[in-house]
Order: sequence, then C-alpha cells, then structure tokens
Amino acid sequence: MTLSTQPYKGARDFYPEDKRLQKYLFDVMRGVVERFGYEEYDAPILEPLDLYLAKTGEEIVNEQTYAFTDRGDRQVAIRPEMTPTVSRMVAAKRQELAYPLRWYSIPNLWRYERPQRGRLREHWQLNVDLFGISNLAAEHEAIQVADEIMRAFGAKRDMYQIKLNSRRLMDDLLNSYLGLDEVEAHSIAKLIDRMHKMDPATFSAQIDAILSPSRREDGTEDKLTNLLKITQLNELPEAVKNHASVKELEVLLRVLEGSKITNAVFDITLMRGFDYYTDIVFEVFDTHPDNNRSMFGGGRYDGLVGLFGVEPVPTVGFGMGDVTLQNFLETHKLLPSLKPETDAYVVLIGDVYEQAQRVLMSLREMGLHVAVDTSERKPDKQIKSAVKKGLRFAIFIGEKELKDEQYVLKDLKTGEEQTMSEQRLVAAVKDFRKT
Amino acid sequence: MTLSTQPYKGARDFYPEDKRLQKYLFDVMRGVVERFGYEEYDAPILEPLDLYLAKTGEEIVNEQTYAFTDRGDRQVAIRPEMTPTVSRMVAAKRQELAYPLRWYSIPNLWRYERPQRGRLREHWQLNVDLFGISNLAAEHEAIQVADEIMRAFGAKRDMYQIKLNSRRLMDDLLNSYLGLDEVEAHSIAKLIDRMHKMDPATFSAQIDAILSPSRREDGTEDKLTNLLKITQLNELPEAVKNHASVKELEVLLRVLEGSKITNAVFDITLMRGFDYYTDIVFEVFDTHPDNNRSMFGGGRYDGLVGLFGVEPVPTVGFGMGDVTLQNFLETHKLLPSLKPETDAYVVLIGDVYEQAQRVLMSLREMGLHVAVDTSERKPDKQIKSAVKKGLRFAIFIGEKELKDEQYVLKDLKTGEEQTMSEQRLVAAVKDFRKT
Repeated sequence: MTLSTQPYKGARDFYPEDKRLQKYLFDVMRGVVERFGYEEYDAPILEPLDLYLAKTGEEIVNEQTYAFTDRGDRQVAIRPEMTPTVSRMVAAKRQELAYPLRWYSIPNLWRYERPQRGRLREHWQLNVDLFGISNLAAEHEAIQVADEIMRAFGAKRDMYQIKLNSRRLMDDLLNSYLGLDEVEAHSIAKLIDRMHKMDPATFSAQIDAILSPSRREDGTEDKLTNLLKITQLNELPEAVKNHASVKELEVLLRVLEGSKITNAVFDITLMRGFDYYTDIVFEVFDTHPDNNRSMFGGGRYDGLVGLFGVEPVPTVGFGMGDVTLQNFLETHKLLPSLKPETDAYVVLIGDVYEQAQRVLMSLREMGLHVAVDTSERKPDKQIKSAVKKGLRFAIFIGEKELKDEQYVLKDLKTGEEQTMSEQRLVAAVKDFRKT
Repeated sequence: MTLSTQPYKGARDFYPEDKRLQKYLFDVMRGVVERFGYEEYDAPILEPLDLYLAKTGEEIVNEQTYAFTDRGDRQVAIRPEMTPTVSRMVAAKRQELAYPLRWYSIPNLWRYERPQRGRLREHWQLNVDLFGISNLAAEHEAIQVADEIMRAFGAKRDMYQIKLNSRRLMDDLLNSYLGLDEVEAHSIAKLIDRMHKMDPATFSAQIDAILSPSRREDGTEDKLTNLLKITQLNELPEAVKNHASVKELEVLLRVLEGSKITNAVFDITLMRGFDYYTDIVFEVFDTHPDNNRSMFGGGRYDGLVGLFGVEPVPTVGFGMGDVTLQNFLETHKLLPSLKPETDAYVVLIGDVYEQAQRVLMSLREMGLHVAVDTSERKPDKQIKSAVKKGLRFAIFIGEKELKDEQYVLKDLKTGEEQTMSEQRLVAAVKDFRKT
C-alpha cells in the first residue's frame, strides 16, 4: 500500500515559504499586542467537550467539533475556539491574578466545515482578551488593538470598516420595543446573524416562519423590517434612544474618532455568532469589492468566567484568523516578499568537510546562518541547489581557501565574486540582511 | 453544573510566566538550527491513522495514539510524532525540492501515556531533519546541532553524554554473528531497548523466553550477554570488526572529537524505539545523578520517504522534547529568570483616559510596551497590580502631567520617582530592558 502525500482535507501543510509567511503574520500581531501590554498564554488543544456545550453555540458543537471519546472514556474535543479555554484558565486562578489582565494567544483551532475561501478546517487565530474592566475603555482598547494590527500590516482605513452593535440594544429592541418573547427573540437574532447570506425574500419568509400570526398582523414584522434599515444611532425609535445601550455606542464611537479611528460605524444587523456575548460586539469588514466580507471580530462577554463557579470577571476580547487575514492582504497587495532565514550556502570544493569545520563554526559564532552542502557533488550542482533555495550568497571553501584563510563570496544574483577574510565576509552578508 | 477549571489530564496550561519560559526554550532552539541553515515548516495536527501504522512502532499506535473517526468517516490520529508527517511532505514535492534539505519544526505531539516525570500526554518537540545526504556528514551535523543547542542553554559537556550505536551493526551482531532468525532478532532488539528499565534477572528471563531451547544450549545466550557488556568498538568480536557499520562509528566518533564534541561514546545497548531507523542512532543522556536518563535522540532513517511511492531520500534527524529538556535545565540550575514583555504600567490619575490617548500612542510608537490601568481605581490599587505583575516601572498620568507634558516615572523596585519628558522616559525604560 502506498501512503497518500496529501495533508488532511481542509488543513494546510506549511512548507518553509508558507511558514515564513505565517511567522511574518504572527510577528506583526505579537508586535502590536505586546506594545499594548498583552502577555502570551497557551493551553492544550484538547478540552472536555462540556466546555463548549455551555455557550459556544449549537451549530459549532453539534455539527463542527472534532469530538471523540479518549482511552480513559472522557468526552473530549479538539478546540473549535479559544475563548472557553482562556475563561477556564482565568477562573482557575481567579483570586491570584492581577487585574486588569491582558492576555493573548495564537492557537490553532479545528472545525469540521466545508472547505472554501476564507474557511478551512484548521486555522490559527490571534485571541486578544482584556479581563477585569467593566467600562468602555476595554471596548475602545480592543478595537484600537485590532485597528493597529491592520495598520501594522500596511492597511489604509478605507480598506476596512469596523462595524459596531450592542447585544443589549438588540435585547431592548427585540424584547421591549417589539415585544417578542424569549424564544422568538433568540430565533430572530440568529436569523439576523445570517441575513447577509440570503436574499430578502428568503429572509422575509423566515421571519414569517418564526413570528406567530398575531405578531405578523399587528405590524411587528414591519417594525422589525424598518428597524433593520437603520444606519445611524439617531434614527433609532424614541422609545430606546435614551437607553444606556445607545449611550454606550455613542460614547464609544466618539472616543474611537478621537483616537483617529475614523472607519468605525454602527450596524444594527451585526450579531456575531457566539451565544456568550453580553453587550457591545464589533466586526472588521474588508471593503474591497473582490473580497467584501467579514474578517474577524469580538465583543464583551462578562459571563463566561463565572460559569466555572467563581465570581464573574468582565471581559472584552476578539479573535483574528490567519486565513481571512491572508486573503485580505493578498487582495489589497499588502503581502511583503520575505527573504529565506539562511544567509549563505557553503559550497565545498573537494573532500574538505572535516577541515572546513573550524571556519563553519566561526561563521556561525559570528551570527551567520550558513547551510553547507555536504553532498560531495560537483560545485556547479551545489550552486544550483543554492539558487533553487532562493539564497543570495554562496561561499566557496576548498583546500586553497583553507590554507590562505581567504574565501570566495559569490553573489548569486549579480554573479559577482570576491575573495575575502571571514570577518569581511560576515560583514558583507550582514549588510545585505538589512536591505 | 459547574465546569472544571483543570486542563486535560497530562497536558499543561501555559500561563504567561510558563509561556515566557517556553518561548525562551524555542528561541534558543531556533537560533541554533537557523545558524545551521535549517528552515521551519509545519503541518496539520491531524493525520490519517495509516501514516503511523507503517513504521512508528506498535506500542505507540495501538496503545498511545489519540485516534478517532471523523465526521467524514476517516480514521485519523492526533500526531504522536512528526517524522512520518515530514516524510510525507518531502515525498509530496520529491522532485521540486532542492537537496540537501534542512527542515525543522516545533510541533506539539500527543500520546496517551501515564503522566510522570519527563512524560506528559502533550509535549512539544523540536524536530530537526536533513534530507538528501547519504554520507556521515549528515550524522555529524545532526549531533553537532544537538550539542550546540545544549551548549546554547549553558550546558557544560560533563552535564550530558551523547551515546551512539548503529542499527546495521546490531543486525550484523544479532543475525550474522549470533545467527538469530528475523523474529528472534526483532524481539531481542526490542528487549535491549527496554533493558535499562528492568533488573538483570528479569532481563535474563526474558531472553530465555525469546530464544529457542537449542539456542540457549549452544551458548548463544552467553554470547549475547557478553556482547552487551562491550563498551568500546575495539572490544567487538573479530567477525564483525571490519564491517562497514563499525568503520562508520569509528569515523563518526573521530570527526565529532575533531569538532570538540568530547562527550560522545559508543553504547551497544542503545536501540531507540522507532522501527524506521536504518543505520546510526544516537541519544543524549543527562549525567546528573538526580536526573540520570535519556533526554532525546535521533538517527538515520533512509526508508520513510520511499513509503509514499517516490524514490527514497536518505535522511538523518532528531527530536528534542520540551519536558525532558526543562527537567534537565532545572536539575542543572540553567533556567534563566525572564522579564515580563511589558515595560511599564500606566497609572491614570482621575478621569483622563481620553486625553491620555495621545501620550499612550506616542509611547507605543517609540516601541515601548505599556499596559494602561483603566479600572478607575485609586492609584495605590493600580500600583499594587503592577507590582503583582512583576513590572519594574509605573508611569503616572493625570491632568497636570498632560498639561505640562512631563510624566512621573516610578521605579517600583527602588521606589525612586523622576519627572521627565516622553522621550527621556522611553530612553530610561529601554536602558533597563537591555540589562
């Protein structure tokens, strides 16, 4: 039997050039979040399935988790998201930790989905969470961090939009203003979450299916349809205009504007899928016509830590996936070209591997990244490998070079060759690194 | 129902202080392997179970894998090791890749084991592989890289020993010299692999159980027992002394000595568990009396890539686990104390969050990692958080400071306070970072 060389469906192999790109994405993310004082954490990729039953949302748990029974008869899942895990970790040390707590992680997550653009079965996701702040400064900071990351990748503010809404406002509208009961309100909320994926007629038919006939007749449906057309906070019905949820959105938009985040807008149709959000939610959208879609988002979830039997901790967080981010950067031509980590390829002339050790060790001690070709092939074959690897320099070492302590450095792009000492060679290669 | 706050049994949560240590370990590893020209790759944590059935070894596959059937009815496993995966990736691009290929990865691996010192169900493992070199330079480099990593962690050569053996030599001894058949030889090899975990009487009884009565009577058992007492290559029986396998070990030991690796020795009892090794194997042992154990190892496995239906590629590699490494560094007191990533904690005096944004943004632009306390608590409570987080500096910002554009920098260790401009403040904090 011949084994397949393909990776698991919907997951990716990262060859060195792919990994280099991933490392670039993660380095940029780390750079920004650490400037805001976030510290990295991590956790096992397996969790008890229970952890997701509470608040992750039915679709993910029932249809998309990688769940199984382990050899010790425990029901476990490969994590589909990180938020329950980080809440568990905070709960475990609820009393010992110093708040506010700024934590981030870049875990891989698994969901059994139909692989398509922007969605794979395994993806990596930057998770940024601020624990212990109940005021709006937390939401402001979360959005500010998200915005700074986008800008660190070179995005201009017209390339993306930050949409805001409030779960509390939606509760005010669906329950108090429209008078829906809990079941209806929940179903309508889930429907609004999917509305941009369906045509208006289907959407309308689904509303009909949820609302009882009396509600359809008393004008509730029209009121709902009109609500969903609102694009400004001041267009909201008078009955809710003075609610705290509206004031919060107003203040947040003003403070964001004050920190030069001019691309944040209110969007009454923004719901976010997870059940655990309790208040303000936000999502970052790509504005490019070829890739006009939600990229990532987050919000406030004050109830999760409390599920672990400890006093709740107010929390705001967001998650940013690598696949959608990469699509965005490709669409807007923001991906840089990255150099290999290896500086130079050592071509050995003749049987000098043992004698060359001293030079190789010395080059490495001076910080150079050097790969040596020990294949015993002819030099031109060795150089071909270096070129194929995309390396810029080759260093030739043979008996004469070892005796003279002078080595040939060849620029594989220009073809230029220079004979020089170890020190000069290191300096020349390091100069190129900086370009 | 209250959810448990514990991580999955035998796996670890990484709180920021734990993650900081892990990042230190990985950074040191990356630094060394990249100086030798290795490039990082990665792959999905799920693989078809088939991948491990071929050569990983029965115990791991049957008793220790996390295997299950996915929603598409595929038999999958969470990877217990990385070698089959990297072989698959090389096979997939067999013709396109430029050899020699130097690849590394630091994947997490899962095995269902009884958790104990040095063994957990999830661990991370540096995997270093050199593809395409059939001569001894590959083994030399693998051991040299392993040795350099140990030394980069501050280990002295008397703290660890590098043991070498050869699968080909063992075949020569068990098959040709002792005349065992294939089944006997395989069972004896597996027994030798476990011999240091049992007392001599049990070991001897197990040999009896494997060998047929005729072999016991004709002196085969005594010959085997005597073989296993050999500690030098020149003590090997005359019949095998001139075999290529012995010459290889001699040359390798000499070349290692030439590169100042003085702690490498021949060990006839070294087998390594995996079935895929084909020639020289090595293992690094901790010599400390409190932690005298095998830490990690590797060897040549020329047959794996060929299992995927392509032309085989000669390969030498090793894997170095984080748990055993950490035990070693702790035992030898080589773990450094690591500073938090955050440079300073901003204490806000009064309701100045919005006005302070300009300063905060500017400090971050200058590269400072600053966490701001937005809890609206009294300044002394805010300082307490900074101290608990182990941060060295607090920066006080209130209305007066914003007006004067002069801020108070407090050294939380010495208690010293100084009023200064943004620029001076950044310089002072960056100076400390370098210490």
